[in-house]
Amino acid sequence: MDRYMQAAVDEALIGLKEGGIPIGSVIVHDGKIIGRGHNRRIQKGSTVLHGEMDALENAGRLHASIYRECVLYTTLSPCPMCSGAILLYKIPRIIIGENRTFLGAEEHLKASGVKLEVINDPSCIAIMTGFIQARPELWNEDIGIP
Amino acid sequence: MDRYMQAAVDEALIGLKEGGIPIGSVIVHDGKIIGRGHNRRIQKGSTVLHGEMDALENAGRLHASIYRECVLYTTLSPCPMCSGAILLYKIPRIIIGENRTFLGAEEHLKASGVKLEVINDPSCIAIMTGFIQARPELWNEDIGIP
Repeated sequence: MDRYMQAAVDEALIGLKEGGIPIGSVIVHDGKIIGRGHNRRIQKGSTVLHGEMDALENAGRLHASIYRECVLYTTLSPCPMCSGAILLYKIPRIIIGENRTFLGAEEHLKASGVKLEVINDPSCIAIMTGFIQARPELWNEDIGIP
Repeated sequence: MDRYMQAAVDEALIGLKEGGIPIGSVIVHDGKIIGRGHNRRIQKGSTVLHGEMDALENAGRLHASIYRECVLYTTLSPCPMCSGAILLYKIPRIIIGENRTFLGAEEHLKASGVKLEVINDPSCIAIMTGFIQARPELWNEDIGIP
């Protein structure tokens, strides 16, 4: 696994240890990780800090031109909210750990010109499969399913 | 102006007094405001807390079924990120203060079945027009324009 996706997985595992939903993300600019984060629903009672959003938040305020040169790595296919943030900031390329346990707004991203690469990494799949089986109610809450 | 949109405008004006970007939002369930907020880019250095996102965050963790019975009021047409959050949580109806100074992802929302009502209220237009003229660089940063 490349070191950026490994960093996203590391974030997901930090979230899992905290009792949270194990999804992690990093934002890379010019080869350097400039933002990293993980889902904070449980830890902060947050409804907006999905992994990708937390990475964006932790990257801090950036000039709009920076985002357009970034690659975002995420352990799981980005939901409509995170996809919307990607489109707002015009991040051009997304590397997705897996889309087997959840398929986000990939078609909308592709139709909007974002380049996606889906790895379907076994460890990403295993982390989410285990969590969904253990805490289906938390997972459904996170993706807005009653 | 109806009292919910007035509450969203009140939030926008709180943001303006704080030195922030004046966009406010409230979420209404069963006639009651259950979340309110305003853009926090300047105040918190946040890249994800647009007005609608702040209202969602302040509403706290809710069962997915609640969102599906809500109406979201926002002083400005929702950007792609906020529209994505609306789609994630399946909020069915959005009342928009104005879309003259900025047109968000309204077509995408409509195509996804969300009902939109655009008021184009003069006070909402005046607040944003004044801010954009005064601080164009902050506004461009908020919507990801270099």
